[in-house]
Amino acid sequence: MLICSTVPAPREIIDVIDRRLEATVEDLIGLARIPSVSATGFDPAEVSRSAERVAELFSDAGLHGVEILRLAGAHPYVTAQWLDAGPKAPTALIYAHHDVQPPGRLEHWKTPAFEPTRRADGRLYGRGVVDDKAGILLHLAAIRAWLDTRGSLPINVKLIVEGEEEIGSDHLAEFLRTHRERFDADVLVLSDTANLDTGIPSLTTSLRGMIAVDVTLRAIDHPIHSGMWGGPVPDAATALAMLLARLVDDSGEIRVPGLYDDVPALSASQRAALEALPFDEAAFRRDAGMLEGSRLIGDKRHSVYERIWHRPSLAVTALEGMPLAIAGNQLIAEAKARVGIRLAPGQDADRVARLLVDFLASDPPHGATVELDVTTAVPGWRTTPEGPAFDAARRALAAGFGREPVEIGCGGSIPFVGPFSSVLGGIPSLLLGLEDPPCNAHGENESLDLDDFQRACWSSAHLLAELGC
Amino acid sequence: MLICSTVPAPREIIDVIDRRLEATVEDLIGLARIPSVSATGFDPAEVSRSAERVAELFSDAGLHGVEILRLAGAHPYVTAQWLDAGPKAPTALIYAHHDVQPPGRLEHWKTPAFEPTRRADGRLYGRGVVDDKAGILLHLAAIRAWLDTRGSLPINVKLIVEGEEEIGSDHLAEFLRTHRERFDADVLVLSDTANLDTGIPSLTTSLRGMIAVDVTLRAIDHPIHSGMWGGPVPDAATALAMLLARLVDDSGEIRVPGLYDDVPALSASQRAALEALPFDEAAFRRDAGMLEGSRLIGDKRHSVYERIWHRPSLAVTALEGMPLAIAGNQLIAEAKARVGIRLAPGQDADRVARLLVDFLASDPPHGATVELDVTTAVPGWRTTPEGPAFDAARRALAAGFGREPVEIGCGGSIPFVGPFSSVLGGIPSLLLGLEDPPCNAHGENESLDLDDFQRACWSSAHLLAELGC
Repeated sequence: MLICSTVPAPREIIDVIDRRLEATVEDLIGLARIPSVSATGFDPAEVSRSAERVAELFSDAGLHGVEILRLAGAHPYVTAQWLDAGPKAPTALIYAHHDVQPPGRLEHWKTPAFEPTRRADGRLYGRGVVDDKAGILLHLAAIRAWLDTRGSLPINVKLIVEGEEEIGSDHLAEFLRTHRERFDADVLVLSDTANLDTGIPSLTTSLRGMIAVDVTLRAIDHPIHSGMWGGPVPDAATALAMLLARLVDDSGEIRVPGLYDDVPALSASQRAALEALPFDEAAFRRDAGMLEGSRLIGDKRHSVYERIWHRPSLAVTALEGMPLAIAGNQLIAEAKARVGIRLAPGQDADRVARLLVDFLASDPPHGATVELDVTTAVPGWRTTPEGPAFDAARRALAAGFGREPVEIGCGGSIPFVGPFSSVLGGIPSLLLGLEDPPCNAHGENESLDLDDFQRACWSSAHLLAELGC
Repeated sequence: MLICSTVPAPREIIDVIDRRLEATVEDLIGLARIPSVSATGFDPAEVSRSAERVAELFSDAGLHGVEILRLAGAHPYVTAQWLDAGPKAPTALIYAHHDVQPPGRLEHWKTPAFEPTRRADGRLYGRGVVDDKAGILLHLAAIRAWLDTRGSLPINVKLIVEGEEEIGSDHLAEFLRTHRERFDADVLVLSDTANLDTGIPSLTTSLRGMIAVDVTLRAIDHPIHSGMWGGPVPDAATALAMLLARLVDDSGEIRVPGLYDDVPALSASQRAALEALPFDEAAFRRDAGMLEGSRLIGDKRHSVYERIWHRPSLAVTALEGMPLAIAGNQLIAEAKARVGIRLAPGQDADRVARLLVDFLASDPPHGATVELDVTTAVPGWRTTPEGPAFDAARRALAAGFGREPVEIGCGGSIPFVGPFSSVLGGIPSLLLGLEDPPCNAHGENESLDLDDFQRACWSSAHLLAELGC
């Protein structure tokens, strides 16, 4: 093993990060001001604007080959690189995304979604601040500090910043085929995941998969007077409630037959590792915003972490019939829902989607017409966090955060991680990120802990050093 | 019994109605152009504008004492009278309403809700055309024809046109107390009900009651990421579906314990009368807009008419969680529904409301917080259609429509009919109207059959004559 004089990253690098911190946060705020919502129905020009801003930031930092790449029909990718460490040095592929989720119900934001605002709690609030614009800026801060101070990086880096992660990364496979050379690397660094808690650095070693099925139920072809027809004529809202209620039992466990059949059992050591993690039920309830009286649900034989990271779960993530404000004592003709199932890592997504569709289509209440559309079906992912890259990541996180990192699962899904790392020859994938329990990524009032952001910038500087050793 | 020379109404009266028909329809169109939606959230100035237009039409027709009456906090009533038939002649109190239901989903109207449009099917389409602006115009056409031709009416009439029938007639009791003299009459003529079918004149002898309970269910205090939290944390949409599904069994019968206990049994003769009515299941399914495969629901031991007119029925008449268009893989924090129950005539509305609230509040799924708001609780009504006023109505309808009228129930609710007729000393209440199966009152594309409208104008002219004999 080489003796690396640059491990951990020298003090002067850290000092530059600190001196530029305010400017970095301002860059983050500027980027998060751009409403780069990739979902259908939002202005795609904003996603392009955000790509342009990322490219500008990359150029300013001294990265090379900065490009905005547009595949037909896709939101733009931004790529950049710095390969002057030479062919013998390892290459890290750093991935983040610049698109964001829709802001949701604007009236529920305490400060506007696209006017990022710092509050007295030390957090920055705004759509995309933690998911995933911080993931772009934290590496950029580290790269810039190295380049400003030393004129070079300890390793080669390639950066890919995607513009449609929040809508399923549909063009990533094509992008990979078309621009394969931009991906070749020895290690993947993906900054879009969570920490177990604020201030606790975490390496994510598994992701859940996800399926989503849009359900449209119709019983009659137009709304009709509930008095004139109610009794013999079914309504779509009641029928939809009946259909959805079949999906779970009273404890919230999924009743779709066969759904749990391919859930991998945890090994004794995996279970022991889970049990070793700190868990504070009161804090968990508070961070989830659970109301007094609301019960934790699911099969109690599995711990809360196991239920989130390693077991499937079902939720109705969209529901619409007739809004109360315009309802007029009608039998509702059409009601819709989205049924989302998060899959245990290792479950077959297509198989579960088929089971769910079959279940929803079979014997609908009152003979209603049920239209089903599988909009998402991606499997989960799991890695064994062993080898020099993971060791480097652990040391970098420990140096940046001042405490040993923990290994966690992620209940969320990042569809491309599996295919990505396998196409790249199974290179180690380091999943790091800043989403902490109160961050409310995807929700209203999304936020980023600014102390953790600083620690993450430091950790990135250390990681570049550690990977170079 | 007097020999009445004016029974049925003389040919010249009918001719005037026919000559003015086009103008009457234009008056109806003009009135229906005013979006007089009484519901909260709509411009109350439009309800005032509609009152002013009704008052203008009344004055133009030669009615006396035309007034717009405003109780504090209420939409305006329009009253008018013609009492020159003298104290010995009977007095009819003619009731209708000039407010309308909200238009619902505007994009579902084939022609704009407030631009009444005649189509080739002989119907006029627009919000309020049948419910209940036709109910105003048909009597006005008859009154005007009598006054234009003879300079007098066969009886005294008082007209009361309400501005908040569609929101529960909340101020009618106060109005009755304050302006009692405007109500004293020998017979109530209420034109806001249905005909069994287009072209079949019908006397409505019962109304169902109605309760409505708004349900707000919360499990968490803000939406959170379905991956990061899904499994142990409940979502409001699934929990609401579970709660609503408890309300009915697989056949659609209501499962709230005790709810059917006070449903009056039909007598053998009532049942025989129901069975004598023509029923065409295919036409019923078509008029209801039932989709292929959709099943008629409810307890098959009761006929379809019995289920609509004499049995309680439950529907979820509003449903909202997160719209699909803005849903972002969140656990939904709050979901809402309105549960409506139509009550059999004779059921105790407050009792059923209590039963429903108790049922919804008890042991909510996952310990969720359930907020319940009883927004409506009105009993049904039933009359025995015997005596000279009912006989007069039967003859007038037969003369106007060219066929004997049938007696029907009404599955809808007109909250004030019961209290109204009892305060007025139990005077006979003639419930007549033009809502036919395809009219879609309260729904989108509400419409009026213009041939039936003309027959109803004739019938009203005959009714004035018949009541005078």
